[in-house]
Amino acid sequence: MPTYKAPLRDMMFVLDEVIGTSRVQSIPQFSEVNRDLIEAVFNESARFTETVLHPLNQSGDKEGCHWHDHAVTTPKGFKEAYKAFVDGGWPTLTGNAEYGGQGLPNVISMMTEEMICSSNLAFSLYPGLTRGSSIMLERHGSKELKDKYLPKLIQGTWAGTMCLTEPHCGTDLGLLRTKAELQSDGTYRISGTKIFISSGDHDLTDNIIHFVIARTPEAAPGIKGISLFLVPKFMVNEDDSLGERNPVFCASIEHKMGIKASSTCVMNFDGAVGYLVGDLYKGINNMFTMMNTERIGVGMQGLGIAEVAYQNALAYARDRLQGRSLTGPKYPDKPADPLMVHPDIRRMLLTMKSMNEGCRLLAAWVAETLDVMEHSSDPVQKQEAEDFVQLMTPIIKAFLTDVGTEGANLGLQVFGGHGYIHEWGMEQFARDARIAQIYEGTNGVQALDLIGRKLPAHAGRFLRRFFHPLDAYLTQHATNIDLADFIQPLAKVYGRLQHATVTIATKALGNADEAGAAATDYLRLFGLTALAYLWCRAVEVAQAKIGQGEDDFYEAKIHTARFFMTKVLPQSSALFSQIMAGAKPLMNFDDKHFG
Amino acid sequence: MPTYKAPLRDMMFVLDEVIGTSRVQSIPQFSEVNRDLIEAVFNESARFTETVLHPLNQSGDKEGCHWHDHAVTTPKGFKEAYKAFVDGGWPTLTGNAEYGGQGLPNVISMMTEEMICSSNLAFSLYPGLTRGSSIMLERHGSKELKDKYLPKLIQGTWAGTMCLTEPHCGTDLGLLRTKAELQSDGTYRISGTKIFISSGDHDLTDNIIHFVIARTPEAAPGIKGISLFLVPKFMVNEDDSLGERNPVFCASIEHKMGIKASSTCVMNFDGAVGYLVGDLYKGINNMFTMMNTERIGVGMQGLGIAEVAYQNALAYARDRLQGRSLTGPKYPDKPADPLMVHPDIRRMLLTMKSMNEGCRLLAAWVAETLDVMEHSSDPVQKQEAEDFVQLMTPIIKAFLTDVGTEGANLGLQVFGGHGYIHEWGMEQFARDARIAQIYEGTNGVQALDLIGRKLPAHAGRFLRRFFHPLDAYLTQHATNIDLADFIQPLAKVYGRLQHATVTIATKALGNADEAGAAATDYLRLFGLTALAYLWCRAVEVAQAKIGQGEDDFYEAKIHTARFFMTKVLPQSSALFSQIMAGAKPLMNFDDKHFG
Repeated sequence: MPTYKAPLRDMMFVLDEVIGTSRVQSIPQFSEVNRDLIEAVFNESARFTETVLHPLNQSGDKEGCHWHDHAVTTPKGFKEAYKAFVDGGWPTLTGNAEYGGQGLPNVISMMTEEMICSSNLAFSLYPGLTRGSSIMLERHGSKELKDKYLPKLIQGTWAGTMCLTEPHCGTDLGLLRTKAELQSDGTYRISGTKIFISSGDHDLTDNIIHFVIARTPEAAPGIKGISLFLVPKFMVNEDDSLGERNPVFCASIEHKMGIKASSTCVMNFDGAVGYLVGDLYKGINNMFTMMNTERIGVGMQGLGIAEVAYQNALAYARDRLQGRSLTGPKYPDKPADPLMVHPDIRRMLLTMKSMNEGCRLLAAWVAETLDVMEHSSDPVQKQEAEDFVQLMTPIIKAFLTDVGTEGANLGLQVFGGHGYIHEWGMEQFARDARIAQIYEGTNGVQALDLIGRKLPAHAGRFLRRFFHPLDAYLTQHATNIDLADFIQPLAKVYGRLQHATVTIATKALGNADEAGAAATDYLRLFGLTALAYLWCRAVEVAQAKIGQGEDDFYEAKIHTARFFMTKVLPQSSALFSQIMAGAKPLMNFDDKHFG
Repeated sequence: MPTYKAPLRDMMFVLDEVIGTSRVQSIPQFSEVNRDLIEAVFNESARFTETVLHPLNQSGDKEGCHWHDHAVTTPKGFKEAYKAFVDGGWPTLTGNAEYGGQGLPNVISMMTEEMICSSNLAFSLYPGLTRGSSIMLERHGSKELKDKYLPKLIQGTWAGTMCLTEPHCGTDLGLLRTKAELQSDGTYRISGTKIFISSGDHDLTDNIIHFVIARTPEAAPGIKGISLFLVPKFMVNEDDSLGERNPVFCASIEHKMGIKASSTCVMNFDGAVGYLVGDLYKGINNMFTMMNTERIGVGMQGLGIAEVAYQNALAYARDRLQGRSLTGPKYPDKPADPLMVHPDIRRMLLTMKSMNEGCRLLAAWVAETLDVMEHSSDPVQKQEAEDFVQLMTPIIKAFLTDVGTEGANLGLQVFGGHGYIHEWGMEQFARDARIAQIYEGTNGVQALDLIGRKLPAHAGRFLRRFFHPLDAYLTQHATNIDLADFIQPLAKVYGRLQHATVTIATKALGNADEAGAAATDYLRLFGLTALAYLWCRAVEVAQAKIGQGEDDFYEAKIHTARFFMTKVLPQSSALFSQIMAGAKPLMNFDDKHFG
């Protein structure tokens, strides 16, 4: 049976000591966000996720969701846990205070989301999609729609969904066929089939509010003819009581590799009543407001799984006696040494640890900037923050979810045969983590978004928000002897990233496939560079704090950074060579030669 | 629903055109093994695996095995398929003719095993363990035991198992507790619990013959006190009819991530009658005869899954219309272009293709040498062959199974969301493939076997069987302009491997952990070097054959090799740097710093 303890000390290190919350606190609505408040929220979130959500993770996987008569029942205990989640006010954390939210910053919710994902990834999807929906509605909905739906979505008493995919279109939404027909009363009738709808139906809330993209009859083909509609499961009366059932039904649920306690639905809209959200034909843009929040959220799923996988692998490696150290018995009084003595076990654990802690730094950096982007009153600061978030969103989504699957599989491997059976919970982490590389845009699509949209945007303006701080940092520490072991590898990988960026940008001018061919390797190289930078900053902090207590914690940071620089970061040399090899080996490969 | 077609053309290319069968044919018992015979066997194996085993793969996963009253029932159709397998003579393929086998070489069976694993990995375990058991019994059993059990094991009418693991000992068999007590009649009574016993019980055969390692009361502690015993499920009467039930029972079956149609049993031996196999206290050595065969077999599991995953991903990428080429629509008359136009999809497919075909070459090279090792009458040739097989066994096991999981996951990713649901079969490949990195010695243990045992053995004698042909090849082709694009990267990676070998060997003299810390990276570097060499040889053959018909096939080889050299082989630079970073980042990491 796996265990979970929220990594509170590391979360405070990341937020309070490395990334810092001063910019966030300078925003008027966050002026009261101080260390005490953050710790109070984290402690309570730790208690809730460890004691309420985590115990349902394995049972939820085993039981899965049930479909019966066009309705979904969640596994035993989920309804009660969701009620406790709502009663605890967790859905309202970052919500707009005007609609009943607590108005806390993303730097806090990003960490509480990590805890939720670590403890029960399948559960996290229900509030995760509701949160994304409410952000979108707040930004694009009419006052009328907002007044009616937003308070309950923010409270979590109603849930939200995002209905995009159809059987013949996943990534390519321009192909979609779902129809929206205007009625004389100004509402629309929505008809069509959507698939892979997370939380499409369930028994956690009284009502479910679907956000559906569809095509009006006169609309242009492709994505320019798509509009966004709000379609409630139950109609809402004037007095806010629930009215008639709207004809939107769950036709079936998918049987999946993992996240089995999350319902993944085929949804049939049979002339269901829908309300236009935002302007006609702006459906994709409006939906993408939600997609970016969702994509960062999915990144946290990767980190969450990687963290819990690490914790359990570490506990097992300490507990399990197997074999002797290569340099002679370390515990001669015991029948064997613990797994921890074996270099290869340590390699796996430290790969996980250095990646996870680095990714947590990266997530916090983006979350802090997201708060500035959303709330700063300084237009320059706001724009710069938005540029950075735009740039980093695909990296958070893809890099962190790759790390999630890699970490889950390393953790599983530490357990040997025990990792492969349900009982220990490790194989569930590997199955659950796998979806995060796929949904909300596959990681290949993220890489293309980074290299094809974010890089060239405004003549490289987004990129400068990453390159400038790195340039400044490297200049500042060029002669810092204490940091030399860390700055040197950072300078090297950053040089590779710069070189790769220029090469791709130049080549892609003549041939767009050059960008596509490099995309996945480039995103990984970018992520590793970001982690190298953040590890340097973490080491700086740790070096300064040693001798003031908690030396073990800070020394661990320095050693973990050292491991990252010498044993993980060399990946960048391979990525660089693969990028420089260009598109020819892929694109000059005739279709018939594939077999 | 996934499909499978045995890659017969590639198998013949590998065996007949690159590796060659002349050494095998020069062995008297294989003098009739010619191209016609190989093709005939392959064609029949293709038919059987495609039409009998493959259709049961998904249903077997869905249904799983059933445990009831200490007995296991396999999924619907497995019993009939197994009967057809026996009736077709498949278990006898390589068996000793003296005991009813067909006496065919490993170069043939390695490929038929790949087909079985591609079509139904879970099924493959039943005959796979039986084959391993019969090899071990033939080598170490008394004439009496062989006469009684071997014909039926070779025929497959009885099945075999390998009972090693106990709850507290997986890799570290020295800890085992199962007892064997000598009786006055010369038999033993075996008592204890074994776990993770593949095919421990099932309904496919009338009898199951367990090969069990256990400790006699007076035996030394550790692995030197372990002996091997044959324990039949049903006692066998004088007239070979089945007698009493021996008290060995399946206490439960495991619920696993994958290979659900393979029974994984907890086996209780309650004073079961056992017969000593080979000498007392030689149990581990005797068992390892089987382990090596098994390990090579497990490597084929990795390749088998990677192959079927590739085939299905390719078919999907050709069929699925999604998005447009980055360089403008390629099929403007269709609503979208097929996935094949996207560089990142091609990257995934070509990574799979170049790895799979390279691994098939490697497997054939080892299989061919295995035949020489087992049957050559020239003692020098025989010894050299054995050295090579010893060296390559951990590489075949670990490298090919890593490729299996990587390929299954790349294939899944090509499918996007459809890859994550049961229906399309891709997620099953990923779940099934995962076990192969764990059982028969985890891949970390394989890496340690390579670096800690195989490298230093006889002052590096094993290693020379790989280095010498590479040296000779590089010398021979140093000025071959046609091959230059391939020879150069081979020379580079081989240089890295040599440098790494010397460095590790030197460092490990002073500190064994230096070997352990490098092991996994070193094994991967070794595997990539072997593939680079074999791809060069494949290109040589292909270049010579172009213009003689089948140009598409040979051109595909050259382009695939080019992809491998430029887009996969750069991994070796990262591996090299990680190896050179040494053991300190791992071993100087204090236990308390892990968290």
